[in-house]
Amino acid sequence: MSVSRAADVVVVGAGLAGLTAADALVTAGRDVVVLEARDRVGGRLVNHDLGDGLVAEAGGQFVGPTQNQVLGLAAELGVATFPTYAAGDSVYVHGGRARRFGGDIPPDPLALPGLGLAMARMNRLARTIPLEEPWTARHARRWDGTTFATWLRRVTAGTGGLDLVDVFLGSAYGATAAEASLLFSLHYIAGMGDEHTPGTIDRGIAVAGGAQELRFHGGSQLLAVRLARRLDGRVVLGAPVRAVEQDGRSVTVRSDAGAWTARHVVLAVPPVLAARVSWSPRLPPQQEALFGRLAFGALAKCEAVYDEPFWRADGLNGQGVFRAGSTVCSMFDNSPPGDGPGVLMGFLGGRQWRAWAGRPARHRRGAVLRAFAQVAGRRALRPREYFEQDWTAEPWTLGGPTAAAAPGVLTALGPWRDRPFGRVHFAGAEHADYWNGYMDGAVRSGRDTARAVLAAAD
Amino acid sequence: MSVSRAADVVVVGAGLAGLTAADALVTAGRDVVVLEARDRVGGRLVNHDLGDGLVAEAGGQFVGPTQNQVLGLAAELGVATFPTYAAGDSVYVHGGRARRFGGDIPPDPLALPGLGLAMARMNRLARTIPLEEPWTARHARRWDGTTFATWLRRVTAGTGGLDLVDVFLGSAYGATAAEASLLFSLHYIAGMGDEHTPGTIDRGIAVAGGAQELRFHGGSQLLAVRLARRLDGRVVLGAPVRAVEQDGRSVTVRSDAGAWTARHVVLAVPPVLAARVSWSPRLPPQQEALFGRLAFGALAKCEAVYDEPFWRADGLNGQGVFRAGSTVCSMFDNSPPGDGPGVLMGFLGGRQWRAWAGRPARHRRGAVLRAFAQVAGRRALRPREYFEQDWTAEPWTLGGPTAAAAPGVLTALGPWRDRPFGRVHFAGAEHADYWNGYMDGAVRSGRDTARAVLAAAD
Repeated sequence: MSVSRAADVVVVGAGLAGLTAADALVTAGRDVVVLEARDRVGGRLVNHDLGDGLVAEAGGQFVGPTQNQVLGLAAELGVATFPTYAAGDSVYVHGGRARRFGGDIPPDPLALPGLGLAMARMNRLARTIPLEEPWTARHARRWDGTTFATWLRRVTAGTGGLDLVDVFLGSAYGATAAEASLLFSLHYIAGMGDEHTPGTIDRGIAVAGGAQELRFHGGSQLLAVRLARRLDGRVVLGAPVRAVEQDGRSVTVRSDAGAWTARHVVLAVPPVLAARVSWSPRLPPQQEALFGRLAFGALAKCEAVYDEPFWRADGLNGQGVFRAGSTVCSMFDNSPPGDGPGVLMGFLGGRQWRAWAGRPARHRRGAVLRAFAQVAGRRALRPREYFEQDWTAEPWTLGGPTAAAAPGVLTALGPWRDRPFGRVHFAGAEHADYWNGYMDGAVRSGRDTARAVLAAAD
Repeated sequence: MSVSRAADVVVVGAGLAGLTAADALVTAGRDVVVLEARDRVGGRLVNHDLGDGLVAEAGGQFVGPTQNQVLGLAAELGVATFPTYAAGDSVYVHGGRARRFGGDIPPDPLALPGLGLAMARMNRLARTIPLEEPWTARHARRWDGTTFATWLRRVTAGTGGLDLVDVFLGSAYGATAAEASLLFSLHYIAGMGDEHTPGTIDRGIAVAGGAQELRFHGGSQLLAVRLARRLDGRVVLGAPVRAVEQDGRSVTVRSDAGAWTARHVVLAVPPVLAARVSWSPRLPPQQEALFGRLAFGALAKCEAVYDEPFWRADGLNGQGVFRAGSTVCSMFDNSPPGDGPGVLMGFLGGRQWRAWAGRPARHRRGAVLRAFAQVAGRRALRPREYFEQDWTAEPWTLGGPTAAAAPGVLTALGPWRDRPFGRVHFAGAEHADYWNGYMDGAVRSGRDTARAVLAAAD
């Protein structure tokens, strides 16, 4: 056996949750080491280099009001925000026709009344969900025994509202409403706020005033890079963790970069990967079953770079909403701030990912650029650069952007989500009640977990 | 690197599917090795020794009409069947009251009309499902976007039919109707037959004339033991497979007992475990996502052994149906044939498993025996032996009895279920269209996969 190094706390995973937890533990005087499988920090946050010191994000990137945890962290780290470009019209593409519109809800005359009703009702139901224990909601069993799609189909009476919600879920869940529990979805919506502001689906969907309102100067990964710098040598890259062994006194973490023994471990990796660690003793079967079922959705980001954001001169904001049948489900102007190049970014989520992920790269590129052209005009067909980030191809993430729970999971196994296993605590965006699956949820979970470790008896 | 041994085909997993495939391949003249993680063969089939040469099964055990694949195999191996004890009354336990009844459907006056209607309708809908491509059913997208529970609640108008179907699913899925897709459930029911006999839920539920009609002399594991004997030294126990590496010419399987290189591999392990193998190149993300989502339900068998099957003298057949709220969901007379001891066996499936698995063993034993006593009388409280088999605690199975697909999974990813990945073919009870999740499905899948390997170009 190799010799174990020692630490007070080993944090596994240098994503936002793990780094936030590590930072809080170091601040509290603990001796901490962070083990990261990849050769970079940031997890689902990754900057793509555009040259000239400019970047475009290929992972999580948007923040907005009530996301006080991540906004507070950014302020503390000196990472400034700027507004997502939103001046001018968006474009709604349906049945091959493209139509300009203002605001966040596409002007579909048939779908709109039902969608409005459904959004109002989901907001009202979301307010009845006990955020920390959604499985105790009055109708928890019924709501968790139903898909979000069944409920939407009923409320919108088949007028197309389900398709439009699926456009949002394509990038939010990497899945469709057919795959998600109604209870999980109401809980997810209830969390799109903060302690003082009830969550609403409107805030989740919106750019101005919503979850897509702001971006970070220098790219979202800069948060992770600055946190790692502050951790000053405590982050070990290229250290995938294979085994976690504990007894009553300590816990040993075995990685490809060696073993560490600690009083506590913070496991800040996607739930499915937590289930795959070799555990001794074994993870409780309920927790193993839950983590295995919290599989990430499927998401890729496809981005095209142009000399300038040419669509802006046409009064377009680069945002597109594509009803079922297109390559991408939605797209945004993802240009860096200032007078630099223009970037269009499209989400290939859930159904779109499944349709396109297995096709030849040049076919997919062509289809994505044609979708971009439907929104931004024919100049979109000739980018100076095109890149893709397929999160399902990342062995240390296995999909994205988050794990929407299937029916039955939350009521059956939900209480196991955040429960420490002996000396091992779990953290990550999927362990947050507010902004579950978002950067804000990751920071909140990291901080909460650090507090729990500090409060735990040695 | 260690030296690889060579074979024409490496079969991973010595459960019924893997052994059947290996047997067919050897018969066709192929050089085969079977790698098994455990120190025994049989997978989900395991005999519990009662002494005096008698056994009671702690895993899969029942067979019945239309299960021609497993019945044919048993005949070929000289393993005889005998009828599950069914003479006399069953007992229905609801709200603390126990009531005797005949047949397979409990005499619940409120639930019965709705349940009958629901069963007739699910049989009718099941006949419309294209068995080999359920995702092409006319209403596939809608049915896969709905839970089985939502549909049952609507058809039975909340009169309790859902609860009674959940009793069956507790042992059939190890889960509730709230967790399963309607489309998957209709496909599952459609498969409860054979090429000449349409599947029905009635056949799945029934003892006489149904899937619980027969048992095997010597216990179901004897099928695996005899197959392994016929494979004569080709089965390597204690050989968990960690990695599968392939190029265009061959495939190498790395196990704790060494590496083998072959022309083809049959991976006959539970889908979730197939997803956890270290693959090079990586499993296609769609297949990885599918296998990860085909998580087994939760199932334990709890069995009590008595000097004799004393309940028979009271005109009881030892069968019990427990509506929600009890420890076990259903129970059977699991005595060996002849004049030996009496055995009562209760299923702790899905909801019941979750309620009881984490409790102290002696509390659970007490609760199970009290449930047995409600059916068989107070003598049931004092067995001469009590044992449990918790399938969720088996690292090489991870639950049981099978994987009921959640909503959205079949339409999104179903076509990937049986698709070979390069030189690797997949087998197992979860890869069968007829009797999916049953022994019969395992044998069918093993034979089909062997044929596919033989038909594949070298």
